[in-house]
Amino acid sequence: MLDKTAPDAARRDYYDRIAQKNLSPLWESLHTLVPPQPQPQCVPAIWKYEKLRADVMESGSIISAEEAVRRVLILENPGLKGQSAITQTLYAGLQLILPGEIAPSHRHTQSALRFIVEGKGAYTAVNGERTTMHPGDFIITPSWTWHDHGNPTEAEGGEPVVWLDGLDIPLLRSLDAGFAENYPEASQPVMRPEGDSFARYGYNMAPVRHTFSGTSSPIFNYPYERSREALDQLARRGELDPWDGVKLRYVNPATGGYPMPTMATFMQWLPAGFQGKTYRTSDSTVFSVVEGQGSVRIGDEVFQFGPRDVFSVPPWKPVQLAALEDAVLFSYSDRPVQAALGLLREERIA
Amino acid sequence: MLDKTAPDAARRDYYDRIAQKNLSPLWESLHTLVPPQPQPQCVPAIWKYEKLRADVMESGSIISAEEAVRRVLILENPGLKGQSAITQTLYAGLQLILPGEIAPSHRHTQSALRFIVEGKGAYTAVNGERTTMHPGDFIITPSWTWHDHGNPTEAEGGEPVVWLDGLDIPLLRSLDAGFAENYPEASQPVMRPEGDSFARYGYNMAPVRHTFSGTSSPIFNYPYERSREALDQLARRGELDPWDGVKLRYVNPATGGYPMPTMATFMQWLPAGFQGKTYRTSDSTVFSVVEGQGSVRIGDEVFQFGPRDVFSVPPWKPVQLAALEDAVLFSYSDRPVQAALGLLREERIA
Amino acid sequence: MLDKTAPDAARRDYYDRIAQKNLSPLWESLHTLVPPQPQPQCVPAIWKYEKLRADVMESGSIISAEEAVRRVLILENPGLKGQSAITQTLYAGLQLILPGEIAPSHRHTQSALRFIVEGKGAYTAVNGERTTMHPGDFIITPSWTWHDHGNPTEAEGGEPVVWLDGLDIPLLRSLDAGFAENYPEASQPVMRPEGDSFARYGYNMAPVRHTFSGTSSPIFNYPYERSREALDQLARRGELDPWDGVKLRYVNPATGGYPMPTMATFMQWLPAGFQGKTYRTSDSTVFSVVEGQGSVRIGDEVFQFGPRDVFSVPPWKPVQLAALEDAVLFSYSDRPVQAALGLLREERIA
Amino acid sequence: MLDKTAPDAARRDYYDRIAQKNLSPLWESLHTLVPPQPQPQCVPAIWKYEKLRADVMESGSIISAEEAVRRVLILENPGLKGQSAITQTLYAGLQLILPGEIAPSHRHTQSALRFIVEGKGAYTAVNGERTTMHPGDFIITPSWTWHDHGNPTEAEGGEPVVWLDGLDIPLLRSLDAGFAENYPEASQPVMRPEGDSFARYGYNMAPVRHTFSGTSSPIFNYPYERSREALDQLARRGELDPWDGVKLRYVNPATGGYPMPTMATFMQWLPAGFQGKTYRTSDSTVFSVVEGQGSVRIGDEVFQFGPRDVFSVPPWKPVQLAALEDAVLFSYSDRPVQAALGLLREERIA
Repeated sequence: MLDKTAPDAARRDYYDRIAQKNLSPLWESLHTLVPPQPQPQCVPAIWKYEKLRADVMESGSIISAEEAVRRVLILENPGLKGQSAITQTLYAGLQLILPGEIAPSHRHTQSALRFIVEGKGAYTAVNGERTTMHPGDFIITPSWTWHDHGNPTEAEGGEPVVWLDGLDIPLLRSLDAGFAENYPEASQPVMRPEGDSFARYGYNMAPVRHTFSGTSSPIFNYPYERSREALDQLARRGELDPWDGVKLRYVNPATGGYPMPTMATFMQWLPAGFQGKTYRTSDSTVFSVVEGQGSVRIGDEVFQFGPRDVFSVPPWKPVQLAALEDAVLFSYSDRPVQAALGLLREERIA
Repeated sequence: MLDKTAPDAARRDYYDRIAQKNLSPLWESLHTLVPPQPQPQCVPAIWKYEKLRADVMESGSIISAEEAVRRVLILENPGLKGQSAITQTLYAGLQLILPGEIAPSHRHTQSALRFIVEGKGAYTAVNGERTTMHPGDFIITPSWTWHDHGNPTEAEGGEPVVWLDGLDIPLLRSLDAGFAENYPEASQPVMRPEGDSFARYGYNMAPVRHTFSGTSSPIFNYPYERSREALDQLARRGELDPWDGVKLRYVNPATGGYPMPTMATFMQWLPAGFQGKTYRTSDSTVFSVVEGQGSVRIGDEVFQFGPRDVFSVPPWKPVQLAALEDAVLFSYSDRPVQAALGLLREERIA
Repeated sequence: MLDKTAPDAARRDYYDRIAQKNLSPLWESLHTLVPPQPQPQCVPAIWKYEKLRADVMESGSIISAEEAVRRVLILENPGLKGQSAITQTLYAGLQLILPGEIAPSHRHTQSALRFIVEGKGAYTAVNGERTTMHPGDFIITPSWTWHDHGNPTEAEGGEPVVWLDGLDIPLLRSLDAGFAENYPEASQPVMRPEGDSFARYGYNMAPVRHTFSGTSSPIFNYPYERSREALDQLARRGELDPWDGVKLRYVNPATGGYPMPTMATFMQWLPAGFQGKTYRTSDSTVFSVVEGQGSVRIGDEVFQFGPRDVFSVPPWKPVQLAALEDAVLFSYSDRPVQAALGLLREERIA
Repeated sequence: MLDKTAPDAARRDYYDRIAQKNLSPLWESLHTLVPPQPQPQCVPAIWKYEKLRADVMESGSIISAEEAVRRVLILENPGLKGQSAITQTLYAGLQLILPGEIAPSHRHTQSALRFIVEGKGAYTAVNGERTTMHPGDFIITPSWTWHDHGNPTEAEGGEPVVWLDGLDIPLLRSLDAGFAENYPEASQPVMRPEGDSFARYGYNMAPVRHTFSGTSSPIFNYPYERSREALDQLARRGELDPWDGVKLRYVNPATGGYPMPTMATFMQWLPAGFQGKTYRTSDSTVFSVVEGQGSVRIGDEVFQFGPRDVFSVPPWKPVQLAALEDAVLFSYSDRPVQAALGLLREERIA
């Protein structure tokens, strides 16, 4: 035991022997297992809506909503090929629902958000209540809630509707915590009038006797009209955060926390000419542009963005936003996970 | 658009085209991405200490603690080859420190627990305080705390000490939230006498003016002497849980929650002759046997266990414990993660 | 010591002796000190606005707002004469501010709410922001926040404005926890545009980087327009609580809890013809009628109420509400205190 | 309305008129209702145990425990005559139970603590579990828990036992939130062995499946042996707080908060020769001396204290502690109430 530096051959022999017993030497991989900082495999990437729109629409002739269950084109990060992931924890996809179609009811432990990109009049039903979707609306279907989507027929005024689906699929795959069930019928029964949840919890008021016990927000549609008005009010003041412009996070009104336990959501406004400072955060983020033209630098890459484009930011990559015209960006990230586990880091570079 | 069931060839062509744009069809993988229940790749496995002990001791002549930084044999799940993981979220290893050695000081965002298996007198230092390790002690080195280990020389009475390291390495890899730093010296300076943290927080009392703000427990050694006494007290009553025997979880006394935000820890006592009922949980668990002989059925496998053996339980696999003689089991799992994210499920089968 | 039942004279002599030492026998007062149920001294009472209005207006010629600091007529419970209290814990008063007047800036540990009864256009300033008052608005000036009130001149369109002040003055007197300070000038400087707080926190969104740490709501005006709309939405469904009609509590959007730590506030709607069932609660409540005619039975008393009337409900007195026409009631109580201390009781009698 | 400064006579006439309508002018009492700082009616006071002991013992021949229900001499603050209060919110009394006696079972919404002053072997039963009382033990009987006390006969080794009762009686009187019930029998049935609650929650561990939901601590005896050991450990370090010496607060291990929602409890150690600096707090406090001789300055008064003496500190009075010999002080205050309501203030004067 005097010479603890065994020759390489002895070590290799030792490694081979212990491998039989499902043992391996930490010291050969310590640096990889406990890296000095995040080592993202996912890369900065942008999906230009103008280049995808035809494909999204074509999916409507490739498969029906009913056969597909969810007719979605997954936005797959080029660094995570085959993983159906846009970042290491997040999933993104563009879902199309045509007039007269139904995306049948199911539930799963994955939390999902919908951010409406194009078209209006389709509905999402959650827990017996339907909400009509308009561009810019942020809608949630929390973990293990029955949910389905539908669209009126063309005769009833239905039009193709496209939204961005954001889910925590890769995270739940890592945790191996996925459960799912199909509802016995395509549509769940409607139990409450539209707007009921919002009337109960959306007005800075709440039912007297109801003790809220869930982990997700009791309101499930945050209409764009309201979010935009909040940004407008603050934009008029002219006071800007040098990194973010005017940025708000969506809130679960029953707790003041995030709407869902695994994904944070944000909406921000950048004035024409905004040149943001650089920041980086340990959560990974997906942006969906609502209004305006601008650009984003992520690490060494620069992307020009316009309405309906989607781009992804890997963890700990420096980010810098700029706007050519007044711009509104929606985004979602795995921030609540990192915050709950005491892992969130943020650096604002002056 | 009338026939939405496009022929396979048309679909394949479509898939190829959209793949160029980093798009893929959800409907081909939905069932895999949103599975009906957990699909663990990790398998039930046991590491018999008697079969490993010689290898652990031999590691002491293969590499020094200082060169290794941490001289640990990773317990690698046979279903997760090459991943340095004992379950999808958890890491386990057996660490050896010899008399006179130091495992140098560093810190990382990974949370770590130490469960002492063999030998005594070595110490773990955390945040300027050292604690002496005895078999059965449960010690934490929380996320981003400086920590090092050391052992007195043989002349000073040092003896080889082995402990089980439990970390959340695979979880943090999934989240890509790993940061790490080395301390400029091998040992951090000692700032407080041994037992200081425990005196402040361990007696169901707390400092008057200190507002605790961390996410991990302010006490970092939970001595076996105390945990065993608690089990003894409850064992004497003779009232047993049919699934668990007498089972307690370790607590962060500043919050009543788990000692660390990513790993729960438990100690349980089974009387001789105990035949537990079957349960399953969505968190995955690693057991370390402290005392007694018994057996465990995990899914379709049955393992006999004795002192110092380690076994792993994949998520959602049915588990059934039995004891031939009075037995004490320590265990850790990713329960706090699933609880914080609203994902924890448990089923007790009568 | 055999006969422990000492004769009355011996007891009296003993009581006299120990009284010199500031001692007294519990057993002579136990039943009073630990009563079987609340023993309110305050009584059910109503203040009919039509009978008070002239007095309120006359106060404007009796004293100026500036000299009075706060020109308020206290609604003093007939059972609590001289105590400036409407219940054992709550204070209520009607405050008048005339065109061109200022009620000078001060702060105190007492929490205050304002419920606007008559007139509009006056403002309340809190922490550097002003909000314009309209009938039915619920406004808070939380503990230890600088606040002042003002009214434009008649030339600027100012009109007499009357509001109900609700404070926790008797509670803080019991706790002896009152601190107060005057601001060096009559009006605090305006630092933020009107609506700023509401824009930040009122839209089910919140600033990204702001960690809210106060005990009171960051929004300080809950406009009637919004509250009424919420009630309307729920009223349209036709589903009524048999005790409460449609009743919502105001919420601190940063926590989901009460807007202030000592007083809960509610707004409820009763349809014409509503005959409520009887309930009682251990908190005491003050009601202010916003719209409609109705009646309330409190214990053995029945009061007819109409717009702007105020009535008080002692703790644990049975209450029964009825409406002749569609009615809206605002109310406040000491519920958060009882809830925080684990004391709240409620009984709904079928 | 031009001259708003009405002559005194006019004002008096106005006040008389509105008084008929249960109205009174705030401006005549504003300064009293909203005082610049606490205006305690209670005064600094000390009860020397040597001067009371004979009276306490004599109470045993004046009335039986059963007749008295609770044979207690109330320590009545000289500033609060007839109010059965030691401060504006707290009650204190010395309870005597003789060998063979039972203080019959009841429950009430008032929270109670017992701090054992003299004698040992008597028990307190709470929720079906008995705990044996020793000098220096801190025992709780939380709000609405059945509790009774008993003492073995002399033949069984019973001896007179005296303890300090601390309750929130004045607070609950202010809130008018008192409810009480007698148990149908003198002693409640024993359902669990002694030490059961402590074994479940006292060892920095907790039952796995039990979700604790109460507002009070699940352990109800904090033995002096343990508390003293914690102080000893910290005293040995020699690091003293210049105001408090070594001071710990008792903790509810299920939450990290106070053991009961209305009263905080503390134990502190002062070394011989300690000359504390001056502080003041907005909560009011009762001290019970456990060991040692010392003195306390409260406002302008100085008291010498020795073992078993009790003294009271009004809110916001400057306090300065000194010790002639090593001293241990137990204390309780209404701090959790002020903390929960956002009212707590503390000032440490250098």
